[in-house]
Amino acid sequence: MSRKTTRLDAKKVNSELLTLTYGALVAQMIKDIENIDDVNKQLERIGYNMGIRLIEDFLARTNSGRCMELRETADKIQQAFKLYLGMQPSVSSWSNAGDEFSLVWEQCPISEWVELPPDVRGLKYCNLLCGALRGALEMVQLEIHSWFVQDQLKGDPVTELRVKYIRRLEDAIPAGED
Amino acid sequence: MSRKTTRLDAKKVNSELLTLTYGALVAQMIKDIENIDDVNKQLERIGYNMGIRLIEDFLARTNSGRCMELRETADKIQQAFKLYLGMQPSVSSWSNAGDEFSLVWEQCPISEWVELPPDVRGLKYCNLLCGALRGALEMVQLEIHSWFVQDQLKGDPVTELRVKYIRRLEDAIPAGED
Repeated sequence: MSRKTTRLDAKKVNSELLTLTYGALVAQMIKDIENIDDVNKQLERIGYNMGIRLIEDFLARTNSGRCMELRETADKIQQAFKLYLGMQPSVSSWSNAGDEFSLVWEQCPISEWVELPPDVRGLKYCNLLCGALRGALEMVQLEIHSWFVQDQLKGDPVTELRVKYIRRLEDAIPAGED
Repeated sequence: MSRKTTRLDAKKVNSELLTLTYGALVAQMIKDIENIDDVNKQLERIGYNMGIRLIEDFLARTNSGRCMELRETADKIQQAFKLYLGMQPSVSSWSNAGDEFSLVWEQCPISEWVELPPDVRGLKYCNLLCGALRGALEMVQLEIHSWFVQDQLKGDPVTELRVKYIRRLEDAIPAGED
């Protein structure tokens, strides 16, 4: 399922459709893959592939230049969530070294109205978002690691995604699927 | 992945995210199910489950009353596509008996930017839409059958979905998953 070109107009669809479609994807993967760790990995990978596509669109839409420091990158990520998912996380809990921060949602955009069945407690339902961040940032020569530290689906009061800067990649032909 | 309640605010997300997520779902199903006819059936079924959820939201949002004839229903379907997918099909090619019509898109909303690999030519990529219509209309006591007669993914100039009225269902507790 490849995409022919980049679209610059900002077409919008109902968010519930996305939530239901993503839910169907996760359910299908649980049914087929069985091992929940593998589902988590696969969700991250699908997100990665989305991220490497969406970044181009994001840069074109927002006329963004290169970020000179991680705080700028955090602002852009916030903006991207607003643009694509209509819901902006807050940015908080910066590490002293300034190389780690959290994205916090009162309500995670893709897991609204979702309840996890008890047998898939190990599922990182929103892991797609970690992958999307990794993919998008890799395309702008930034290697990051991200993971959920709080998840409302598991009873936490908010959903918190931690982002850690790893290194700046050499300017080169961007890597494809890892 | 069940939904806790109905949302009445109309939150919007970027349509490309839906297209990519749906693409990931279809790709996952092709990988896991192998038999393309079974993929088509399963897509219809997932759509059905979405339809029976979305109709409630649609009725609440639009204050729709009962349709007295199929032409009214066709108008509502048109409105629903606009509301949820941001793209309105035209309604055309009514049968003489007035029991069949077509929904026609210049560009099908969930298959934009998609190209089918040659080995899945039998895939009815947008079959989810057939299921969604069937599910939604069943909840308002209308049994229909729908199928694609043209598909841009297969080289047709437009995407055309044919809808055929079968019968009015008895007022009863709506049927669950079939």
